[in-house]
Amino acid sequence: MKHIISVLVENKFGVLARISGLFSARGFNINSLAVGETEDPDISRMTVVVKGDDKTLDQVKKQLNKLIDVISVKDFVKKEHIDRELLLFKVNITKDTKDKVAKILDKQGAKIIKTTSDDITVEVVGDEVYTQKLLDKLVEFGIKEMVRTGRIAMAL
Amino acid sequence: MKHIISVLVENKFGVLARISGLFSARGFNINSLAVGETEDPDISRMTVVVKGDDKTLDQVKKQLNKLIDVISVKDFVKKEHIDRELLLFKVNITKDTKDKVAKILDKQGAKIIKTTSDDITVEVVGDEVYTQKLLDKLVEFGIKEMVRTGRIAMAL
Repeated sequence: MKHIISVLVENKFGVLARISGLFSARGFNINSLAVGETEDPDISRMTVVVKGDDKTLDQVKKQLNKLIDVISVKDFVKKEHIDRELLLFKVNITKDTKDKVAKILDKQGAKIIKTTSDDITVEVVGDEVYTQKLLDKLVEFGIKEMVRTGRIAMAL
Repeated sequence: MKHIISVLVENKFGVLARISGLFSARGFNINSLAVGETEDPDISRMTVVVKGDDKTLDQVKKQLNKLIDVISVKDFVKKEHIDRELLLFKVNITKDTKDKVAKILDKQGAKIIKTTSDDITVEVVGDEVYTQKLLDKLVEFGIKEMVRTGRIAMAL
């Protein structure tokens, strides 16, 4: 089961390395990770998406809570929340496919940043279901240079 | 000077801990970090924003290139590129400020996700200048629970 975990940490040297080390020591591969500032510049928030068995993950969360620079640990799995991810990518086009690709992007509410004769640079924001659906529609044209932020979440 | 560095890595246990450890060992605090999948599920891309002197950063980049799981390292600082970040946050409202806040959000193209009597949950995407400008306009009302993805970048 995929879990979205939000960890509020003191913004200090080495915190990130310690926390990511804790996950990898337990054999968790991190699907995605987003670390950004919060409303307080001394505090950062890490949003981690991990897949793994719930029991081991409970142990990881307990260990996280013991770290001195960790302020709080929240698991969104059973909470009402929204999740969002930002993606930038280029989708290949030819003279023949250009209009078709542009139509899909427009219909799905994706933002076109730049169009050349070879590709369209796209900005997309959405939840996991939406972004995956859009990528599935575009994969036949060829997607290159994809950059993803990893998912972030907020309780509603 | 702030640098946006994109590191393409093999998606394996411990890679993230090794790379973030490398930055902290050199005394670099990471402003933001976004780790997400790429078009190839075995490969992840880390986008790191760091501030520091260029000479030490050059050494870090050389060390990154030597790590076995690192495929490539790119610094966007002198390249034509776009940068984007996704933010979710709640801005406080009262009966008196509600309309004013909604007007600012609408004018700036921010997306309202939910409105209660106490706050508005907002989704914002933009480059560093845009997002900072919006936050500056809203700070007087009180911003709470901000979650940021960290910036990602793409060459144009």
